[in-house]
Amino acid sequence: MIIGHTSLKVNYCDTDQMGYVHHSNYIRYYEKARMELLTAIGVPYKEIENAGFFLVVIKAESFYKKPAYFDDCLLVETRLENTTGLRQVFTYKIFNSSAELIHEGATTLAFVDKDSRKPCRPPHFFQQAVQEADAKTH
Amino acid sequence: MIIGHTSLKVNYCDTDQMGYVHHSNYIRYYEKARMELLTAIGVPYKEIENAGFFLVVIKAESFYKKPAYFDDCLLVETRLENTTGLRQVFTYKIFNSSAELIHEGATTLAFVDKDSRKPCRPPHFFQQAVQEADAKTH
Amino acid sequence: MIIGHTSLKVNYCDTDQMGYVHHSNYIRYYEKARMELLTAIGVPYKEIENAGFFLVVIKAESFYKKPAYFDDCLLVETRLENTTGLRQVFTYKIFNSSAELIHEGATTLAFVDKDSRKPCRPPHFFQQAVQEADAKTH
Amino acid sequence: MIIGHTSLKVNYCDTDQMGYVHHSNYIRYYEKARMELLTAIGVPYKEIENAGFFLVVIKAESFYKKPAYFDDCLLVETRLENTTGLRQVFTYKIFNSSAELIHEGATTLAFVDKDSRKPCRPPHFFQQAVQEADAKTH
Repeated sequence: MIIGHTSLKVNYCDTDQMGYVHHSNYIRYYEKARMELLTAIGVPYKEIENAGFFLVVIKAESFYKKPAYFDDCLLVETRLENTTGLRQVFTYKIFNSSAELIHEGATTLAFVDKDSRKPCRPPHFFQQAVQEADAKTH
Repeated sequence: MIIGHTSLKVNYCDTDQMGYVHHSNYIRYYEKARMELLTAIGVPYKEIENAGFFLVVIKAESFYKKPAYFDDCLLVETRLENTTGLRQVFTYKIFNSSAELIHEGATTLAFVDKDSRKPCRPPHFFQQAVQEADAKTH
Repeated sequence: MIIGHTSLKVNYCDTDQMGYVHHSNYIRYYEKARMELLTAIGVPYKEIENAGFFLVVIKAESFYKKPAYFDDCLLVETRLENTTGLRQVFTYKIFNSSAELIHEGATTLAFVDKDSRKPCRPPHFFQQAVQEADAKTH
Repeated sequence: MIIGHTSLKVNYCDTDQMGYVHHSNYIRYYEKARMELLTAIGVPYKEIENAGFFLVVIKAESFYKKPAYFDDCLLVETRLENTTGLRQVFTYKIFNSSAELIHEGATTLAFVDKDSRKPCRPPHFFQQAVQEADAKTH
């Protein structure tokens, strides 16, 4: 299990007329957190695309427990399961500044070949980075 | 089962550098489709808020099957299960203009009292509208 | 002067905690209106890209006069000046359903060659479509 | 003249199918930068609302000079003119990580009374904070 942490500030444009963060923003928070985790384990997403791959979201799931508010400083705890298979599952726990768990989510991603636009196996450099990061956590 | 249909055009700003609709947009498409279904059964969401309630998303689930592209005309088929309970489940099937099912999703919503910001039972006028709409489909 | 009209419904996710449409949405409304005008005069933007060009925004200007609200049905009146030069200027007037002018804006766009990513002259088919549309309005 | 600096990372969802940051995002970058400047001079925007005011955008202007890309680390240099009048003008210069000026913008804001929703004079605590911040820069 690989764990990363991302902090983010809620922007004003993320709010809606309920005075809460609009529910559509969390999936963008996942993306930011996922990108930071990938960078932390040595495979920045930009390099994945430069190497000829896309990593696309094929499934997402969100549980909204408590609202978030403008200017909140949120902490996202991201986990990547060391999948050797075709699908990469990232899970997210989002905490507010009172350390309350306000949101949980998960996204399943798959590699796609940039030229053929067909699903493909994770590239070797990705698998290796995941294994190394995973080894470090034990 | 109450069914509604919404068509929407993919905007340029919805695309990402893969050349696809970015995955974060679908949950906004659900919202638009859900709002149109509520209006169609006689309870526009605006009136729900005017009556002192919010209808908030507490769970969302998305299955991305095929990409959508700029300028695509998408059809969203929305279903509301006639729940007499506390939670309203809407499901979405999104088709492209070739009638391919490209996306499926579901959101669970709950009523919240606008003043107390606490979960509450669906208001009577909502339950009645749902029952009437449901009766019409049989 | 070529004139187009676009109507659009304000989505819930467009609102902010002031209860207004967040100011960042108008530039996306311009885009939608501009795309519809281009389609109306026979040069859908998709075909412009397919022909090897981008039409990129190089300047934008916005005047926020009155707020717009969730569920408002807005009318955008878009004008394209028949520029034979390098820059295409579109102006936008946005009216609410009480026919009040709530917003004005303008965007200046330039053609870019998709391969070289360098600014270029408007393609012939674009200039011709603009001239024909312009002739019809006299 | 009060100057602030904000750095921000370009998210994947900010890109469009040209492979650039979509032009609609810059006005959201201004907002983030403006909020940070307000916090830096001791009047976080949240406190402005808590004190009974909104600070609303009434005019915006943008000059797109060069594209920004996914994962770019952008620097926004924000200036607030020490206006004693009714309108607050913020200007923005955005630099990429090669220190190239890629974008310039300006927004004009006005205070609005939260209850009456009418324009009003800047509150005393805001004017004082601006004057103090301005004094420090000399």
